Amino acid sequence: MKKSLGAKTMSMPEPVFLIATYDENGTPDIMNAAWVGQVSPKHISMSLSNHTTTRNLDLNKEFTVSFATKDYVIAADWVGIVSLDKDPDKIKKSGFTFTKSETVNAPVINELPVALECRLVAAQEEFGETRYVGEVVNVLADESVLNEKGGIDSGKAQFIGFDPAGLCYRVFGEVAASAFGSGKALDK
Amino acid sequence: MKKSLGAKTMSMPEPVFLIATYDENGTPDIMNAAWVGQVSPKHISMSLSNHTTTRNLDLNKEFTVSFATKDYVIAADWVGIVSLDKDPDKIKKSGFTFTKSETVNAPVINELPVALECRLVAAQEEFGETRYVGEVVNVLADESVLNEKGGIDSGKAQFIGFDPAGLCYRVFGEVAASAFGSGKALDK
Repeated sequence: MKKSLGAKTMSMPEPVFLIATYDENGTPDIMNAAWVGQVSPKHISMSLSNHTTTRNLDLNKEFTVSFATKDYVIAADWVGIVSLDKDPDKIKKSGFTFTKSETVNAPVINELPVALECRLVAAQEEFGETRYVGEVVNVLADESVLNEKGGIDSGKAQFIGFDPAGLCYRVFGEVAASAFGSGKALDK
Repeated sequence: MKKSLGAKTMSMPEPVFLIATYDENGTPDIMNAAWVGQVSPKHISMSLSNHTTTRNLDLNKEFTVSFATKDYVIAADWVGIVSLDKDPDKIKKSGFTFTKSETVNAPVINELPVALECRLVAAQEEFGETRYVGEVVNVLADESVLNEKGGIDSGKAQFIGFDPAGLCYRVFGEVAASAFGSGKALDK
Protein backbone atom coordinates (compact mmCIF):
# COMPACT_ATOMS: atom_id res chain seq x y z
CA MET A 1 0.00 0.00 0.00
CA LYS A 2 1.54 3.28 -1.13
CA LYS A 3 1.14 6.55 0.79
CA SER A 4 1.41 10.08 -0.61
CA LEU A 5 4.33 12.05 0.85
CA GLY A 6 3.72 15.29 -1.10
CA ALA A 7 6.00 17.07 -3.54
CA LYS A 8 9.40 16.02 -2.13
CA THR A 9 11.70 15.84 -5.12
CA MET A 10 14.50 13.35 -4.88
CA SER A 11 16.71 11.38 -7.18
CA MET A 12 17.88 8.15 -5.56
CA PRO A 13 20.84 7.76 -5.32
CA GLU A 14 22.34 11.19 -5.97
CA PRO A 15 25.97 11.14 -7.12
CA VAL A 16 28.39 13.23 -5.02
CA PHE A 17 30.42 15.44 -7.35
CA LEU A 18 33.37 17.23 -5.75
CA ILE A 19 33.91 20.14 -8.13
CA ALA A 20 37.46 21.52 -7.91
CA THR A 21 38.38 24.92 -9.36
CA TYR A 22 41.00 27.68 -9.13
CA ASP A 23 40.23 31.33 -8.50
CA GLU A 24 42.03 34.21 -10.26
CA ASN A 25 45.06 33.75 -7.97
CA GLY A 26 45.28 29.98 -8.43
CA THR A 27 43.79 29.28 -5.00
CA PRO A 28 41.91 25.96 -5.13
CA ASP A 29 38.40 25.38 -3.83
CA ILE A 30 36.15 22.33 -3.76
CA MET A 31 32.40 22.10 -3.45
CA ASN A 32 30.16 19.08 -3.02
CA ALA A 33 27.17 18.99 -5.37
CA ALA A 34 24.41 16.39 -5.64
CA TRP A 35 22.10 17.90 -8.29
CA VAL A 36 24.25 16.58 -11.08
CA GLY A 37 24.30 13.96 -13.78
CA GLN A 38 25.39 12.78 -17.19
CA VAL A 39 23.45 14.28 -20.12
CA SER A 40 25.18 12.88 -23.23
CA PRO A 41 28.05 10.52 -24.07
CA LYS A 42 30.45 13.43 -23.47
CA HIS A 43 28.66 15.83 -21.15
CA ILE A 44 27.70 16.28 -17.51
CA SER A 45 25.51 18.92 -15.89
CA MET A 46 25.52 20.46 -12.43
CA SER A 47 22.71 22.67 -11.07
CA LEU A 48 24.28 25.09 -8.58
CA SER A 49 23.34 28.17 -6.59
CA ASN A 50 25.95 30.93 -6.12
CA HIS A 51 29.24 29.78 -4.60
CA THR A 52 32.96 30.52 -4.77
CA THR A 53 32.97 27.60 -7.20
CA THR A 54 30.47 29.22 -9.56
CA ARG A 55 32.56 32.44 -9.63
CA ASN A 56 35.58 30.27 -10.49
CA LEU A 57 33.63 28.39 -13.18
CA ASP A 58 32.50 31.67 -14.73
CA LEU A 59 36.12 32.90 -14.68
CA ASN A 60 38.18 29.87 -15.79
CA LYS A 61 35.58 27.73 -17.56
CA GLU A 62 37.57 24.62 -16.59
CA PHE A 63 37.17 22.27 -13.61
CA THR A 64 37.55 18.74 -12.38
CA VAL A 65 34.91 16.47 -10.83
CA SER A 66 36.07 13.83 -8.35
CA PHE A 67 33.69 11.19 -7.05
CA ALA A 68 33.58 10.98 -3.26
CA THR A 69 34.51 7.68 -1.63
CA LYS A 70 33.70 5.99 1.66
CA ASP A 71 37.09 6.78 3.20
CA TYR A 72 36.65 10.52 2.61
CA VAL A 73 32.95 10.98 3.40
CA ILE A 74 33.57 13.40 6.29
CA ALA A 75 35.86 15.62 4.20
CA ALA A 76 33.45 15.44 1.25
CA ASP A 77 30.59 16.56 3.46
CA TRP A 78 32.72 19.36 4.97
CA VAL A 79 33.58 20.98 1.62
CA GLY A 80 29.86 21.03 0.84
CA ILE A 81 28.67 22.72 4.02
CA VAL A 82 31.27 25.51 4.42
CA SER A 83 32.21 28.35 2.07
CA LEU A 84 35.79 29.42 1.41
CA ASP A 85 34.47 33.00 1.71
CA LYS A 86 33.57 32.38 5.35
CA ASP A 87 36.45 30.09 6.33
CA PRO A 88 39.77 30.67 4.51
CA ASP A 89 41.06 27.46 6.15
CA LYS A 90 38.26 25.36 4.61
CA ILE A 91 40.54 23.31 2.34
CA LYS A 92 43.30 22.90 4.93
CA LYS A 93 40.74 21.57 7.41
CA SER A 94 39.36 19.14 4.78
CA GLY A 95 42.73 17.43 4.48
CA PHE A 96 42.43 17.34 0.69
CA THR A 97 45.57 18.17 -1.33
CA PHE A 98 45.92 18.87 -5.04
CA THR A 99 47.95 18.37 -8.19
CA LYS A 100 47.37 20.80 -11.06
CA SER A 101 45.66 19.06 -13.99
CA GLU A 102 47.82 18.67 -17.10
CA THR A 103 44.73 19.03 -19.31
CA VAL A 104 42.63 21.82 -17.82
CA ASN A 105 43.29 24.82 -15.60
CA ALA A 106 41.93 23.17 -12.48
CA PRO A 107 43.14 21.21 -9.46
CA VAL A 108 42.92 17.41 -9.19
CA ILE A 109 42.19 16.09 -5.68
CA ASN A 110 45.04 13.71 -4.77
CA GLU A 111 43.15 11.65 -2.19
CA LEU A 112 40.23 10.60 -4.43
CA PRO A 113 40.77 7.88 -7.04
CA VAL A 114 38.79 9.14 -10.05
CA ALA A 115 38.54 12.62 -11.56
CA LEU A 116 36.84 13.94 -14.69
CA GLU A 117 38.75 16.78 -16.38
CA CYS A 118 36.14 19.13 -17.83
CA ARG A 119 35.60 22.25 -19.91
CA LEU A 120 32.51 24.38 -19.38
CA VAL A 121 30.39 24.51 -22.55
CA ALA A 122 27.19 26.16 -21.28
CA ALA A 123 25.70 27.90 -18.25
CA GLN A 124 21.96 28.52 -18.12
CA GLU A 125 19.59 29.92 -15.53
CA GLU A 126 16.96 27.30 -14.72
CA PHE A 127 14.47 27.15 -11.83
CA GLY A 128 16.51 29.54 -9.69
CA GLU A 129 19.77 27.62 -10.10
CA THR A 130 22.51 27.93 -12.68
CA ARG A 131 22.91 24.79 -14.74
CA TYR A 132 26.57 24.36 -15.69
CA VAL A 133 27.23 21.89 -18.50
CA GLY A 134 30.73 20.50 -18.94
CA GLU A 135 32.42 18.43 -21.61
CA VAL A 136 34.57 15.66 -20.18
CA VAL A 137 37.91 15.81 -21.99
CA ASN A 138 39.72 13.16 -19.97
CA VAL A 139 39.24 10.76 -17.06
CA LEU A 140 42.00 10.25 -14.50
CA ALA A 141 41.98 7.10 -12.39
CA ASP A 142 44.35 5.91 -9.71
CA GLU A 143 46.08 2.60 -10.43
CA SER A 144 44.76 1.30 -7.11
CA VAL A 145 41.17 1.21 -8.47
CA LEU A 146 41.88 -0.22 -11.93
CA ASN A 147 40.95 -3.77 -12.87
CA GLU A 148 43.14 -6.09 -14.97
CA LYS A 149 41.68 -4.59 -18.17
CA GLY A 150 42.60 -1.06 -17.15
CA GLY A 151 39.03 -0.05 -16.37
CA ILE A 152 37.69 1.41 -13.13
CA ASP A 153 36.62 -1.15 -10.51
CA SER A 154 33.94 0.58 -8.45
CA GLY A 155 34.11 -2.21 -5.89
CA LYS A 156 37.66 -1.16 -5.11
CA ALA A 157 36.86 2.55 -5.23
CA GLN A 158 33.88 2.42 -2.81
CA PHE A 159 32.13 5.44 -4.25
CA ILE A 160 29.35 6.98 -2.20
CA GLY A 161 26.07 8.65 -3.10
CA PHE A 162 23.85 11.04 -1.18
CA ASP A 163 20.58 9.70 0.20
CA PRO A 164 18.22 12.69 0.12
CA ALA A 165 15.53 10.85 2.08
CA GLY A 166 17.86 9.80 4.91
CA LEU A 167 20.15 12.85 4.67
CA CYS A 168 23.17 10.57 4.78
CA TYR A 169 25.75 9.10 2.47
CA ARG A 170 25.61 5.46 1.39
CA VAL A 171 28.21 3.25 -0.21
CA PHE A 172 27.60 2.24 -3.82
CA GLY A 173 28.90 -1.22 -3.15
CA GLU A 174 27.45 -4.70 -3.49
CA VAL A 175 26.83 -5.80 -7.07
CA ALA A 176 23.10 -6.50 -7.39
CA ALA A 177 23.79 -9.91 -8.96
CA SER A 178 23.24 -8.50 -12.42
CA ALA A 179 25.19 -7.12 -15.32
CA PHE A 180 23.82 -4.74 -17.93
CA GLY A 181 21.91 -6.96 -20.33
CA SER A 182 21.06 -9.66 -17.81
CA GLY A 183 17.38 -8.82 -18.31
CA LYS A 184 17.55 -10.90 -21.51
CA ALA A 185 16.90 -13.87 -19.23
CA LEU A 186 13.25 -12.76 -19.18
CA ASP A 187 12.91 -13.07 -22.97
CA LYS A 188 11.14 -16.39 -23.18
CA MET B 1 49.55 7.53 -9.33
CA LYS B 2 46.73 8.49 -11.67
CA LYS B 3 46.47 7.30 -15.28
CA SER B 4 44.61 8.97 -18.15
CA LEU B 5 41.73 6.87 -19.50
CA GLY B 6 40.60 9.30 -22.21
CA ALA B 7 37.25 11.02 -22.63
CA LYS B 8 34.99 8.40 -21.02
CA THR B 9 32.14 10.35 -19.50
CA MET B 10 30.56 8.83 -16.44
CA SER B 11 28.61 9.93 -13.42
CA MET B 12 29.16 7.57 -10.49
CA PRO B 13 26.71 6.28 -9.33
CA GLU B 14 23.99 6.81 -11.94
CA PRO B 15 20.43 6.60 -10.59
CA VAL B 16 18.15 4.09 -12.34
CA PHE B 17 14.91 5.85 -13.25
CA LEU B 18 12.11 3.58 -14.43
CA ILE B 19 9.95 5.99 -16.42
CA ALA B 20 6.36 4.74 -16.75
CA THR B 21 3.94 6.22 -19.29
CA TYR B 22 0.71 5.47 -21.16
CA ASP B 23 0.30 5.64 -24.92
CA GLU B 24 -2.81 7.03 -26.66
CA ASN B 25 -4.70 3.79 -25.91
CA GLY B 26 -3.72 3.64 -22.24
CA THR B 27 -1.18 0.87 -22.84
CA PRO B 28 1.61 1.21 -20.27
CA ASP B 29 5.33 1.15 -21.03
CA ILE B 30 8.43 1.44 -18.87
CA MET B 31 11.95 2.43 -19.81
CA ASN B 32 15.12 2.40 -17.73
CA ALA B 33 17.15 5.62 -17.95
CA ALA B 34 20.44 6.50 -16.25
CA TRP B 35 21.23 9.94 -17.68
CA VAL B 36 18.96 11.61 -15.17
CA GLY B 37 19.06 13.74 -12.08
CA GLN B 38 17.53 16.38 -9.86
CA VAL B 39 17.92 19.97 -11.11
CA SER B 40 15.98 22.06 -8.56
CA PRO B 41 14.00 21.55 -5.34
CA LYS B 42 11.01 20.54 -7.50
CA HIS B 43 12.41 19.32 -10.81
CA ILE B 44 14.16 16.33 -12.37
CA SER B 45 15.67 15.94 -15.82
CA MET B 46 16.12 12.94 -18.08
CA SER B 47 18.23 12.94 -21.26
CA LEU B 48 16.70 10.42 -23.66
CA SER B 49 17.04 9.31 -27.26
CA ASN B 50 13.89 8.33 -29.19
CA HIS B 51 11.78 5.63 -27.55
CA THR B 52 8.15 4.59 -27.14
CA THR B 53 8.46 6.46 -23.83
CA THR B 54 9.46 9.73 -25.49
CA ARG B 55 6.47 9.50 -27.85
CA ASN B 56 4.27 8.96 -24.79
CA LEU B 57 5.90 11.88 -22.95
CA ASP B 58 5.33 14.15 -25.94
CA LEU B 59 1.69 13.01 -26.07
CA ASN B 60 0.58 12.91 -22.42
CA LYS B 61 3.13 15.17 -20.73
CA GLU B 62 2.71 13.17 -17.51
CA PHE B 63 4.72 10.25 -16.17
CA THR B 64 5.97 8.48 -13.07
CA VAL B 65 9.55 7.66 -12.09
CA SER B 66 10.14 4.61 -9.91
CA PHE B 67 13.55 3.86 -8.45
CA ALA B 68 14.79 0.36 -9.19
CA THR B 69 15.58 -1.92 -6.26
CA LYS B 70 17.83 -4.91 -5.70
CA ASP B 71 14.95 -7.43 -5.83
CA TYR B 72 13.89 -6.22 -9.30
CA VAL B 73 17.25 -5.60 -10.96
CA ILE B 74 16.69 -8.18 -13.73
CA ALA B 75 13.27 -6.74 -14.63
CA ALA B 76 14.64 -3.18 -14.44
CA ASP B 77 17.44 -4.10 -16.84
CA TRP B 78 15.00 -5.86 -19.18
CA VAL B 79 12.72 -2.84 -19.64
CA GLY B 80 15.81 -0.81 -20.56
CA ILE B 81 17.17 -3.13 -23.23
CA VAL B 82 14.02 -4.02 -25.17
CA SER B 83 11.52 -1.79 -26.98
CA LEU B 84 7.75 -2.27 -26.79
CA ASP B 85 7.76 -1.61 -30.56
CA LYS B 86 9.81 -4.77 -31.11
CA ASP B 87 8.30 -6.99 -28.40
CA PRO B 88 4.62 -6.38 -27.55
CA ASP B 89 5.07 -8.77 -24.59
CA LYS B 90 7.86 -6.66 -23.07
CA ILE B 91 5.88 -5.60 -19.99
CA LYS B 92 4.29 -9.02 -19.43
CA LYS B 93 7.76 -10.61 -19.53
CA SER B 94 9.08 -8.02 -17.05
CA GLY B 95 6.58 -9.13 -14.43
CA PHE B 96 5.81 -5.53 -13.51
CA THR B 97 2.15 -4.63 -12.91
CA PHE B 98 0.52 -1.22 -12.56
CA THR B 99 -2.00 0.94 -10.77
CA LYS B 100 -3.15 4.14 -12.48
CA SER B 101 -1.85 7.21 -10.67
CA GLU B 102 -4.53 9.31 -8.94
CA THR B 103 -2.52 12.47 -9.63
CA VAL B 104 -1.19 12.19 -13.17
CA ASN B 105 -2.20 10.29 -16.31
CA ALA B 106 0.48 7.65 -15.92
CA PRO B 107 0.93 4.16 -14.47
CA VAL B 108 2.55 3.50 -11.08
CA ILE B 109 4.64 0.30 -10.89
CA ASN B 110 3.19 -1.85 -8.09
CA GLU B 111 6.33 -3.85 -7.34
CA LEU B 112 8.68 -0.90 -6.66
CA PRO B 113 8.37 0.96 -3.36
CA VAL B 114 8.86 4.61 -4.38
CA ALA B 115 7.44 6.57 -7.31
CA LEU B 116 7.60 10.24 -8.27
CA GLU B 117 4.43 11.52 -9.96
CA CYS B 118 5.55 14.08 -12.53
CA ARG B 119 4.34 16.62 -15.08
CA LEU B 120 6.52 17.49 -18.06
CA VAL B 121 7.46 21.18 -18.03
CA ALA B 122 10.12 21.33 -20.77
CA ALA B 123 11.70 19.28 -23.54
CA GLN B 124 14.88 20.54 -25.21
CA GLU B 125 17.23 19.14 -27.82
CA GLU B 126 20.73 18.94 -26.33
CA PHE B 127 23.82 17.11 -27.57
CA GLY B 128 21.80 14.73 -29.74
CA GLU B 129 19.41 13.73 -26.92
CA THR B 130 16.13 15.22 -25.82
CA ARG B 131 16.28 16.56 -22.30
CA TYR B 132 12.89 16.12 -20.63
CA VAL B 133 12.35 18.18 -17.47
CA GLY B 134 9.59 17.18 -15.08
CA GLU B 135 8.02 18.80 -12.03
CA VAL B 136 7.48 16.35 -9.20
CA VAL B 137 3.93 16.90 -7.96
CA ASN B 138 3.81 14.02 -5.46
CA VAL B 139 5.90 11.17 -4.08
CA LEU B 140 4.33 7.77 -3.42
CA ALA B 141 6.04 5.39 -1.01
CA ASP B 142 5.09 1.94 0.13
CA GLU B 143 4.49 1.56 3.86
CA SER B 144 7.08 -1.24 3.88
CA VAL B 145 9.92 1.26 3.29
CA LEU B 146 8.80 4.03 5.65
CA ASN B 147 10.59 4.75 8.90
CA GLU B 148 8.83 5.61 12.17
CA LYS B 149 8.73 9.30 11.15
CA GLY B 150 6.95 8.52 7.87
CA GLY B 151 10.03 9.16 5.73
CA ILE B 152 11.63 6.81 3.23
CA ASP B 153 14.23 4.41 4.66
CA SER B 154 16.61 3.65 1.80
CA GLY B 155 18.16 0.86 3.85
CA LYS B 156 14.84 -0.97 3.69
CA ALA B 157 14.23 -0.09 0.03
CA GLN B 158 17.63 -1.32 -1.27
CA PHE B 159 17.74 1.05 -4.23
CA ILE B 160 20.27 0.30 -6.94
CA GLY B 161 22.37 2.51 -9.20
CA PHE B 162 24.06 1.82 -12.52
CA ASP B 163 27.84 1.50 -12.54
CA PRO B 164 28.89 2.80 -15.97
CA ALA B 165 32.49 1.65 -15.49
CA GLY B 166 31.59 -1.92 -14.54
CA LEU B 167 28.40 -2.07 -16.65
CA CYS B 168 26.52 -3.53 -13.71
CA TYR B 169 24.06 -2.48 -11.05
CA ARG B 170 25.16 -1.93 -7.46
CA VAL B 171 23.15 -1.63 -4.28
CA PHE B 172 23.03 1.79 -2.66
CA GLY B 173 23.26 0.25 0.77
CA GLU B 174 25.66 0.60 3.66
CA VAL B 175 25.58 4.00 5.37
CA ALA B 176 29.06 5.49 5.05
CA ALA B 177 29.18 6.27 8.79
CA SER B 178 28.21 9.84 8.13
CA ALA B 179 25.14 12.06 8.11
CA PHE B 180 24.80 15.26 6.14
CA GLY B 181 26.60 17.88 8.24
CA SER B 182 29.01 15.45 9.89
CA GLY B 183 31.85 17.32 8.18
CA LYS B 184 31.51 19.95 10.93
CA ALA B 185 33.77 17.68 12.96
CA LEU B 186 36.67 19.05 10.88
CA ASP B 187 35.99 22.65 11.97
CA LYS B 188 38.65 23.02 14.65
